[in-house]
Amino acid sequence: MLDPQTPFLLADETKIDRNIDRLQAHLERFDVPLRPHVKTSKSTVITRKIWAGRTGPITVSTLAEGEVFAADGFTDILYAVGIAPDKLQRVVDLRRAGVDLTVLLDSIEQAQAVADASSTYGVPIPALLEVDCDGHRGGVLPGDPAAITIAEILNVGGAELRGVLTHAGESYFSYSPHERAAAAETERRTAVAVAETLRAAGHPAPIVSVGSTPTAHAVRDLTGVTEVRAGNFVFFDLVMAGIGVCALDDLALSAVVSVIGHRPDRGWILTDGGWTATSRDRGTAVQAVDQGYGLVADIYGELLPDVLMSGASQEHGVLSVRPGSGAELPALPIGTRLRILPNHACAMGIQHSKYSVVQGSSPVIVNTWERAQGW
Amino acid sequence: MLDPQTPFLLADETKIDRNIDRLQAHLERFDVPLRPHVKTSKSTVITRKIWAGRTGPITVSTLAEGEVFAADGFTDILYAVGIAPDKLQRVVDLRRAGVDLTVLLDSIEQAQAVADASSTYGVPIPALLEVDCDGHRGGVLPGDPAAITIAEILNVGGAELRGVLTHAGESYFSYSPHERAAAAETERRTAVAVAETLRAAGHPAPIVSVGSTPTAHAVRDLTGVTEVRAGNFVFFDLVMAGIGVCALDDLALSAVVSVIGHRPDRGWILTDGGWTATSRDRGTAVQAVDQGYGLVADIYGELLPDVLMSGASQEHGVLSVRPGSGAELPALPIGTRLRILPNHACAMGIQHSKYSVVQGSSPVIVNTWERAQGW
Repeated sequence: MLDPQTPFLLADETKIDRNIDRLQAHLERFDVPLRPHVKTSKSTVITRKIWAGRTGPITVSTLAEGEVFAADGFTDILYAVGIAPDKLQRVVDLRRAGVDLTVLLDSIEQAQAVADASSTYGVPIPALLEVDCDGHRGGVLPGDPAAITIAEILNVGGAELRGVLTHAGESYFSYSPHERAAAAETERRTAVAVAETLRAAGHPAPIVSVGSTPTAHAVRDLTGVTEVRAGNFVFFDLVMAGIGVCALDDLALSAVVSVIGHRPDRGWILTDGGWTATSRDRGTAVQAVDQGYGLVADIYGELLPDVLMSGASQEHGVLSVRPGSGAELPALPIGTRLRILPNHACAMGIQHSKYSVVQGSSPVIVNTWERAQGW
Repeated sequence: MLDPQTPFLLADETKIDRNIDRLQAHLERFDVPLRPHVKTSKSTVITRKIWAGRTGPITVSTLAEGEVFAADGFTDILYAVGIAPDKLQRVVDLRRAGVDLTVLLDSIEQAQAVADASSTYGVPIPALLEVDCDGHRGGVLPGDPAAITIAEILNVGGAELRGVLTHAGESYFSYSPHERAAAAETERRTAVAVAETLRAAGHPAPIVSVGSTPTAHAVRDLTGVTEVRAGNFVFFDLVMAGIGVCALDDLALSAVVSVIGHRPDRGWILTDGGWTATSRDRGTAVQAVDQGYGLVADIYGELLPDVLMSGASQEHGVLSVRPGSGAELPALPIGTRLRILPNHACAMGIQHSKYSVVQGSSPVIVNTWERAQGW
């Protein structure tokens, strides 16, 4: 297979398989199914690996992902971003095509819009109620009477409140397994409590959906939970390594770049991989160890000690040694290919339309996998 | 024309036309042609506006841009990122297809690779020598004898050193017209000096290429310069407004998002436009006024006073009032469409495959323009 020209996105299939096995082994003890969030890989091939090539229940972040995965045979899809009313037509189209698509909401206005669309189109639309467990983003607070009102509005309109969803977004800042286990327990307890409130008011709420990559790997009790979501775990990244959820050796995604210049007077090596290839994500800037725009490995995946991608413009990357490390820049001739490991795998992925696939330390590209794009 | 669903990229044609007219009026007095950098718009339609619908000389940041613009009839193209040797086959293919494509280099190794490719393929490849005028990125320093060696290597191999190029990258941090005029004079003086050195050594170096959006608008003397490059000026952005190159009212690019939630307890409005729609660029974070992930306007382009996009996750935006402003969040019902003005137009643009086009304050979409994508 012909290598693409740099910059391009590289996925290590060996590490992806290992990362999937690890989370599944952890979750097996709870007998609660995984509903992976495909926003990270946006790849049907990678997602099918979770079920040995078959399909399974998934979470999507855009309707475009839903449409691409539906076309590949996925039929159980949760769209986990609060529904905008004018997207309901596409939701109805997917449901009419045989996809069991569930939407997310946290307001009376959205419930009314979903109920109205269900009745207008004659297609009952199931919804989960978003619950806020840690002040990270959206969701009703536990105890908010709006939960019951929302359930009632949906029932009257022929839609259906299927249950509750929460996401411990703050767990991305949890530096120990103990903290992450506590965040997982907060997710569980919060979601189960709101589900119980709904049930006490006569609304069945069969689904209790929780999860994030940090909490999914740390959770110790899933009593009352019916599904676990996680997305980043297929690749991991420097932010996840920085809080200890994975090792650097687990990182399965990188951008391949070429050396195009040297500025020894400034301690720089220049590459053809700028922020269009890596994204502008600087997630490790708030962590104990700032990894710049990413760590640098050779084309076999071997890290170059203390070499960082320290700067980025649109189509230029700047590599330099970690400040204070005393390291020296290695001699890398013009044309040398390198792998840049991402701060944030989801953000690096978004910049690309496909993966070039390698297996472990071999630089030989054995496959090309497409990514769902747009909205 | 049917409106796309949010988030999507909006271009205001009225403002684009005005921005183009402004720079052209400024440059007309010097009688030096503009070679626009199309990395910002990546749109043949927008770029053709510079020559009333015709083609003209352009600068590209990727060979993919070169190929897309060549297919649209552009024949004079400068690829202004230091050449990686394995891209020379595509350069040769474009030259054989009748495109006068020039590459950029700043090292003896690259010159050797260009000379070798010119002789191997029997296609002389013209090159510009990148000169560093302000320590911003790549380029030889003025006075570096490598300039002459590079010219000699190219001549021996049947390639051609067409001249020199420099870019005042540091001018993006120049807060006054006076500073920007000084940066423009540094660009001019540095490039002309290196060209004169080459000429004194018997290398004609007919091209002296300078420019950036900040310097192009401020330049007072272009003696010895043969072309001016600028890219961002078609749209402008909050970084450019922050240093005073344009007014907020000149910003011609935005991402349209929909309100999907409210968190009055936290002072947040949530939208369906996260960093996938706006990019992670936080260019104004280092300026006097930090604009978060962008300023917020209504769908007609009218700014909502002191409302910022203050947070971003993959498919969620968080809007809140500017800290310390004492402003109150406006009442924006679920489904309200808003325009988010970018920190960095190039970075927001990269996240999208096309423009929905409006004219001035009308929210009616009158056209769709494609963007070149990938590398």
